[in-house]
Amino acid sequence: MLRLFHRCVRDHRVTTHLFLTARAFGANGVIYSGLRDSQLEDRILRTVDVWGGPFHVEFHENWKQAVANWKKKGGEVIHLTMYGLPLESAIKGIKDSSRDKLVIVGGAKVPLEVYELSDWNVSISNQPHSEVSALSIFLHELFEGKELSKAFKDAKIRIMPQRKGKKVVEL
Amino acid sequence: MLRLFHRCVRDHRVTTHLFLTARAFGANGVIYSGLRDSQLEDRILRTVDVWGGPFHVEFHENWKQAVANWKKKGGEVIHLTMYGLPLESAIKGIKDSSRDKLVIVGGAKVPLEVYELSDWNVSISNQPHSEVSALSIFLHELFEGKELSKAFKDAKIRIMPQRKGKKVVEL
Repeated sequence: MLRLFHRCVRDHRVTTHLFLTARAFGANGVIYSGLRDSQLEDRILRTVDVWGGPFHVEFHENWKQAVANWKKKGGEVIHLTMYGLPLESAIKGIKDSSRDKLVIVGGAKVPLEVYELSDWNVSISNQPHSEVSALSIFLHELFEGKELSKAFKDAKIRIMPQRKGKKVVEL
Repeated sequence: MLRLFHRCVRDHRVTTHLFLTARAFGANGVIYSGLRDSQLEDRILRTVDVWGGPFHVEFHENWKQAVANWKKKGGEVIHLTMYGLPLESAIKGIKDSSRDKLVIVGGAKVPLEVYELSDWNVSISNQPHSEVSALSIFLHELFEGKELSKAFKDAKIRIMPQRKGKKVVEL
Protein backbone atom coordinates (compact mmCIF):
# COMPACT_ATOMS: atom_id res chain seq x y z
CA MET A 1 0.00 0.00 0.00
CA LEU A 2 1.35 3.38 -0.97
CA ARG A 3 -0.41 6.71 -0.51
CA LEU A 4 0.58 10.19 -1.42
CA PHE A 5 0.23 12.83 1.27
CA HIS A 6 0.00 16.47 0.26
CA ARG A 7 -0.77 19.70 2.04
CA CYS A 8 -2.51 21.86 -0.51
CA VAL A 9 -1.65 25.50 0.09
CA ARG A 10 -2.77 27.32 -3.00
CA ASP A 11 -2.27 25.95 -6.46
CA HIS A 12 -4.89 23.42 -7.41
CA ARG A 13 -3.61 23.01 -10.95
CA VAL A 14 -0.28 21.65 -9.71
CA THR A 15 -2.14 19.60 -7.09
CA THR A 16 -4.18 18.00 -9.88
CA HIS A 17 -0.98 17.05 -11.72
CA LEU A 18 0.37 15.60 -8.47
CA PHE A 19 -2.70 13.47 -7.76
CA LEU A 20 -2.97 12.22 -11.36
CA THR A 21 0.70 11.29 -11.29
CA ALA A 22 0.19 9.42 -8.01
CA ARG A 23 -2.65 7.43 -9.58
CA ALA A 24 -0.96 6.78 -12.94
CA PHE A 25 2.35 5.73 -11.37
CA GLY A 26 1.06 3.24 -8.85
CA ALA A 27 -0.04 4.90 -5.59
CA ASN A 28 -3.26 3.49 -4.12
CA GLY A 29 -4.57 6.87 -3.14
CA VAL A 30 -3.93 10.27 -1.70
CA ILE A 31 -4.53 11.90 1.65
CA TYR A 32 -4.47 15.65 1.60
CA SER A 33 -4.90 18.53 4.02
CA GLY A 34 -4.82 22.32 3.80
CA LEU A 35 -7.32 23.88 1.42
CA ARG A 36 -10.16 21.54 0.62
CA ASP A 37 -11.31 21.69 -2.99
CA SER A 38 -14.33 19.68 -4.07
CA GLN A 39 -13.71 20.52 -7.75
CA LEU A 40 -10.26 18.99 -7.47
CA GLU A 41 -11.70 15.88 -5.81
CA ASP A 42 -14.40 15.58 -8.49
CA ARG A 43 -11.81 15.89 -11.23
CA ILE A 44 -9.76 13.04 -9.80
CA LEU A 45 -12.81 10.85 -9.19
CA ARG A 46 -14.00 11.43 -12.75
CA THR A 47 -10.57 10.32 -13.98
CA VAL A 48 -10.85 7.15 -11.90
CA ASP A 49 -14.35 6.56 -13.26
CA VAL A 50 -13.20 6.80 -16.89
CA TRP A 51 -9.63 5.46 -16.74
CA GLY A 52 -10.00 2.93 -13.94
CA GLY A 53 -8.85 2.45 -10.38
CA PRO A 54 -8.80 1.80 -7.59
CA PHE A 55 -7.59 5.17 -6.30
CA HIS A 56 -8.82 6.90 -3.17
CA VAL A 57 -8.88 10.58 -2.29
CA GLU A 58 -9.20 11.50 1.39
CA PHE A 59 -9.14 14.91 3.02
CA HIS A 60 -7.86 15.32 6.60
CA GLU A 61 -8.25 18.58 8.48
CA ASN A 62 -5.23 17.89 10.67
CA TRP A 63 -2.11 16.83 8.80
CA LYS A 64 -0.17 15.92 11.93
CA GLN A 65 -2.86 13.55 13.06
CA ALA A 66 -3.07 11.94 9.60
CA VAL A 67 0.67 11.29 9.61
CA ALA A 68 0.62 10.10 13.23
CA ASN A 69 -2.24 7.67 12.42
CA TRP A 70 -0.25 6.26 9.54
CA LYS A 71 2.78 5.63 11.76
CA LYS A 72 0.62 4.19 14.56
CA LYS A 73 -0.65 1.55 12.14
CA GLY A 74 2.92 0.52 11.36
CA GLY A 75 3.36 2.49 8.14
CA GLU A 76 6.46 4.46 7.27
CA VAL A 77 6.75 8.02 6.02
CA ILE A 78 8.90 9.13 3.11
CA HIS A 79 9.29 12.84 2.56
CA LEU A 80 10.51 14.01 -0.83
CA THR A 81 12.55 17.18 -0.41
CA MET A 82 15.46 18.77 -2.21
CA TYR A 83 17.32 18.86 1.13
CA GLY A 84 17.19 15.11 1.81
CA LEU A 85 19.53 12.20 1.12
CA PRO A 86 19.97 11.29 -2.55
CA LEU A 87 17.37 8.91 -3.97
CA GLU A 88 20.22 6.83 -5.41
CA SER A 89 21.46 5.98 -1.90
CA ALA A 90 18.04 5.76 -0.16
CA ILE A 91 16.02 3.72 -2.64
CA LYS A 92 17.44 0.32 -1.74
CA GLY A 93 16.51 0.64 1.93
CA ILE A 94 13.05 1.89 0.99
CA LYS A 95 12.49 -0.99 -1.43
CA ASP A 96 13.72 -3.52 1.12
CA SER A 97 11.07 -2.41 3.63
CA SER A 98 7.67 -4.04 3.25
CA ARG A 99 5.89 -1.43 5.40
CA ASP A 100 3.04 0.63 3.99
CA LYS A 101 4.40 3.88 2.61
CA LEU A 102 3.09 7.41 2.96
CA VAL A 103 4.93 9.66 0.49
CA ILE A 104 4.84 13.31 1.53
CA VAL A 105 5.36 15.82 -1.23
CA GLY A 106 5.08 19.38 -0.15
CA GLY A 107 6.34 22.08 -2.39
CA ALA A 108 7.24 25.30 -0.65
CA LYS A 109 6.84 25.89 3.08
CA VAL A 110 6.84 22.37 4.45
CA PRO A 111 6.97 22.67 8.27
CA LEU A 112 10.27 21.51 9.78
CA GLU A 113 8.32 18.96 11.84
CA VAL A 114 7.75 16.95 8.66
CA TYR A 115 11.51 16.40 8.43
CA GLU A 116 11.50 15.08 11.98
CA LEU A 117 8.41 12.88 11.62
CA SER A 118 9.62 11.25 8.41
CA ASP A 119 11.48 7.96 8.35
CA TRP A 120 13.18 9.09 5.16
CA ASN A 121 13.90 12.53 3.78
CA VAL A 122 14.81 11.84 0.17
CA SER A 123 16.03 14.23 -2.53
CA ILE A 124 15.42 13.76 -6.23
CA SER A 125 18.53 15.75 -7.11
CA ASN A 126 19.34 18.80 -4.99
CA GLN A 127 18.18 21.22 -7.65
CA PRO A 128 14.94 23.20 -7.62
CA HIS A 129 12.35 21.70 -9.96
CA SER A 130 8.86 20.42 -9.18
CA GLU A 131 7.07 18.25 -6.64
CA VAL A 132 5.43 16.56 -9.64
CA SER A 133 8.85 15.58 -11.00
CA ALA A 134 10.04 14.42 -7.60
CA LEU A 135 7.01 12.17 -7.16
CA SER A 136 7.34 10.77 -10.71
CA ILE A 137 10.98 9.81 -10.39
CA PHE A 138 10.46 8.39 -6.90
CA LEU A 139 7.61 6.12 -8.01
CA HIS A 140 9.44 5.18 -11.21
CA GLU A 141 12.48 4.02 -9.21
CA LEU A 142 10.39 2.34 -6.52
CA PHE A 143 8.31 0.37 -9.02
CA GLU A 144 11.27 -0.13 -11.40
CA GLY A 145 9.41 1.12 -14.46
CA LYS A 146 6.62 -1.44 -14.10
CA GLU A 147 4.21 1.38 -13.19
CA LEU A 148 4.30 2.52 -16.83
CA SER A 149 2.28 -0.51 -17.91
CA LYS A 150 0.08 -0.79 -14.82
CA ALA A 151 -3.42 -2.18 -15.49
CA PHE A 152 -6.40 -0.36 -13.99
CA LYS A 153 -9.73 -1.94 -13.06
CA ASP A 154 -13.08 -0.93 -14.54
CA ALA A 155 -11.67 1.49 -17.09
CA LYS A 156 -14.15 2.70 -19.70
CA ILE A 157 -11.58 3.74 -22.29
CA ARG A 158 -8.08 2.77 -23.25
CA ILE A 159 -5.46 4.26 -25.58
CA MET A 160 -3.97 2.15 -28.35
CA PRO A 161 -0.40 3.44 -28.76
CA GLN A 162 0.29 4.86 -32.25
CA ARG A 163 3.35 5.97 -34.19
CA LYS A 164 1.39 9.07 -35.32
CA GLY A 165 -1.99 10.40 -34.23
CA LYS A 166 -4.44 9.31 -31.54
CA LYS A 167 -6.47 6.17 -31.06
CA VAL A 168 -8.84 5.65 -28.15
CA VAL A 169 -11.03 2.57 -27.73
CA GLU A 170 -14.10 2.20 -25.56
CA LEU A 171 -14.14 -0.88 -23.39
CA MET B 1 22.19 19.22 -27.22
CA LEU B 2 18.69 18.80 -25.91
CA ARG B 3 16.04 21.51 -25.72
CA LEU B 4 12.53 21.45 -24.43
CA PHE B 5 9.86 22.95 -26.67
CA HIS B 6 6.60 24.10 -25.12
CA ARG B 7 3.60 26.03 -26.35
CA CYS B 8 2.37 27.95 -23.35
CA VAL B 9 -1.40 28.30 -23.50
CA ARG B 10 -2.44 29.45 -20.08
CA ASP B 11 -0.95 28.07 -16.92
CA HIS B 12 2.36 29.67 -16.09
CA ARG B 13 2.70 27.83 -12.79
CA VAL B 14 2.82 24.46 -14.54
CA THR B 15 5.07 25.98 -17.23
CA THR B 16 7.51 27.04 -14.49
CA HIS B 17 7.59 23.47 -13.15
CA LEU B 18 8.22 22.23 -16.69
CA PHE B 19 11.11 24.61 -17.37
CA LEU B 20 12.73 23.99 -13.97
CA THR B 21 12.47 20.25 -14.57
CA ALA B 22 14.06 20.65 -18.00
CA ARG B 23 16.99 22.53 -16.44
CA ALA B 24 17.43 20.26 -13.41
CA PHE B 25 17.24 17.05 -15.45
CA GLY B 26 19.73 17.90 -18.16
CA ALA B 27 18.16 19.89 -21.00
CA ASN B 28 20.34 22.73 -22.32
CA GLY B 29 17.45 25.10 -22.65
CA VAL B 30 13.89 25.70 -23.65
CA ILE B 31 12.20 27.23 -26.67
CA TYR B 32 8.62 28.28 -26.09
CA SER B 33 5.79 29.87 -28.02
CA GLY B 34 2.21 30.87 -27.29
CA LEU B 35 1.76 33.35 -24.45
CA ARG B 36 4.93 35.23 -23.70
CA ASP B 37 5.52 35.85 -20.00
CA SER B 38 8.46 37.96 -18.91
CA GLN B 39 7.86 37.09 -15.23
CA LEU B 40 8.21 33.42 -16.09
CA GLU B 41 11.43 34.10 -18.01
CA ASP B 42 12.82 36.18 -15.14
CA ARG B 43 12.00 33.43 -12.66
CA ILE B 44 13.92 30.87 -14.70
CA LEU B 45 16.86 33.19 -15.30
CA ARG B 46 17.05 33.98 -11.56
CA THR B 47 17.17 30.23 -10.88
CA VAL B 48 20.04 29.86 -13.36
CA ASP B 49 21.82 32.80 -11.73
CA VAL B 50 21.60 31.26 -8.24
CA TRP B 51 21.76 27.52 -8.95
CA GLY B 52 23.96 27.52 -12.05
CA GLY B 53 23.68 26.78 -15.73
CA PRO B 54 24.01 26.97 -18.58
CA PHE B 55 20.32 27.00 -19.49
CA HIS B 56 18.74 29.13 -22.19
CA VAL B 57 15.19 30.40 -22.53
CA GLU B 58 14.04 31.49 -25.98
CA PHE B 59 10.64 32.69 -27.11
CA HIS B 60 9.47 32.10 -30.71
CA GLU B 61 6.31 33.70 -32.05
CA ASN B 62 5.81 30.95 -34.63
CA TRP B 63 6.03 27.44 -33.27
CA LYS B 64 5.96 25.76 -36.68
CA GLN B 65 8.92 27.77 -37.85
CA ALA B 66 10.86 27.01 -34.65
CA VAL B 67 10.31 23.27 -35.13
CA ALA B 68 11.09 23.50 -38.87
CA ASN B 69 14.35 25.36 -38.12
CA TRP B 70 15.36 22.64 -35.70
CA LYS B 71 14.79 19.95 -38.29
CA LYS B 72 16.53 21.94 -41.03
CA LYS B 73 19.67 22.03 -38.87
CA GLY B 74 19.61 18.23 -38.63
CA GLY B 75 17.95 17.94 -35.22
CA GLU B 76 15.23 15.46 -34.40
CA VAL B 77 11.90 16.06 -32.69
CA ILE B 78 10.48 13.93 -29.90
CA HIS B 79 6.91 14.57 -28.87
CA LEU B 80 5.78 13.28 -25.49
CA THR B 81 2.11 12.33 -25.68
CA MET B 82 -0.12 9.80 -23.97
CA TYR B 83 -1.12 8.54 -27.44
CA GLY B 84 2.39 7.64 -28.64
CA LEU B 85 4.50 4.50 -28.63
CA PRO B 86 5.60 3.28 -25.18
CA LEU B 87 8.82 4.83 -23.85
CA GLU B 88 10.04 1.33 -23.04
CA SER B 89 10.10 0.42 -26.74
CA ALA B 90 11.18 3.82 -28.12
CA ILE B 91 13.98 4.78 -25.75
CA LYS B 92 16.67 2.57 -27.28
CA GLY B 93 16.26 4.07 -30.75
CA ILE B 94 16.27 7.58 -29.28
CA LYS B 95 19.42 6.91 -27.26
CA ASP B 96 21.17 5.37 -30.27
CA SER B 97 20.67 8.56 -32.30
CA SER B 98 23.30 11.24 -31.80
CA ARG B 99 21.17 14.00 -33.35
CA ASP B 100 20.24 17.10 -31.37
CA LYS B 101 16.90 16.57 -29.69
CA LEU B 102 13.93 18.89 -29.38
CA VAL B 103 11.49 17.47 -26.83
CA ILE B 104 7.97 18.77 -27.33
CA VAL B 105 5.70 18.62 -24.30
CA GLY B 106 2.31 20.07 -24.82
CA GLY B 107 -0.40 19.36 -22.36
CA ALA B 108 -3.92 19.71 -23.71
CA LYS B 109 -4.73 20.79 -27.26
CA VAL B 110 -1.54 19.94 -29.13
CA PRO B 111 -2.26 20.47 -32.86
CA LEU B 112 -2.34 17.23 -34.85
CA GLU B 113 0.46 18.59 -37.04
CA VAL B 114 2.87 18.09 -34.13
CA TYR B 115 2.25 14.35 -34.37
CA GLU B 116 3.13 14.48 -38.06
CA LEU B 117 6.20 16.71 -37.70
CA SER B 118 7.71 14.64 -34.89
CA ASP B 119 10.25 11.90 -35.50
CA TRP B 120 9.00 10.18 -32.37
CA ASN B 121 5.65 10.30 -30.59
CA VAL B 122 6.39 8.72 -27.24
CA SER B 123 4.04 7.87 -24.37
CA ILE B 124 5.05 7.79 -20.73
CA SER B 125 2.30 5.32 -19.89
CA ASN B 126 -1.06 5.73 -21.64
CA GLN B 127 -2.71 7.16 -18.55
CA PRO B 128 -3.56 10.81 -17.95
CA HIS B 129 -1.10 12.49 -15.60
CA SER B 130 1.11 15.52 -16.18
CA GLU B 131 3.44 16.93 -18.82
CA VAL B 132 5.86 17.57 -15.93
CA SER B 133 5.86 13.85 -15.08
CA ALA B 134 6.24 12.86 -18.72
CA LEU B 135 9.27 15.13 -19.16
CA SER B 136 10.86 13.91 -15.89
CA ILE B 137 10.60 10.24 -16.74
CA PHE B 138 11.73 10.79 -20.31
CA LEU B 139 14.88 12.68 -19.25
CA HIS B 140 15.54 10.21 -16.43
CA GLU B 141 15.50 7.28 -18.88
CA LEU B 142 17.44 9.15 -21.55
CA PHE B 143 20.21 10.17 -19.14
CA GLU B 144 20.01 6.90 -17.19
CA GLY B 145 19.72 8.58 -13.81
CA LYS B 146 22.98 10.50 -14.24
CA GLU B 147 20.97 13.73 -14.48
CA LEU B 148 20.23 13.47 -10.74
CA SER B 149 23.82 14.34 -9.91
CA LYS B 150 24.46 16.78 -12.75
CA ALA B 151 26.92 19.58 -11.92
CA PHE B 152 25.98 23.15 -12.83
CA LYS B 153 28.39 25.97 -13.62
CA ASP B 154 28.64 29.22 -11.67
CA ALA B 155 26.18 28.23 -8.97
CA LYS B 156 26.06 30.55 -5.97
CA ILE B 157 24.56 28.05 -3.54
CA ARG B 158 24.49 24.32 -3.11
CA ILE B 159 22.52 21.97 -0.87
CA MET B 160 24.34 19.55 1.40
CA PRO B 161 22.06 16.49 1.61
CA GLN B 162 20.86 15.76 5.16
CA ARG B 163 19.08 12.92 6.92
CA LYS B 164 16.88 15.52 8.69
CA GLY B 165 16.53 19.26 8.14
CA LYS B 166 18.05 21.64 5.62
CA LYS B 167 21.62 22.69 4.91
CA VAL B 168 22.53 25.19 2.22
CA VAL B 169 26.07 26.42 1.59
CA GLU B 170 27.14 29.54 -0.26
CA LEU B 171 29.85 28.97 -2.85
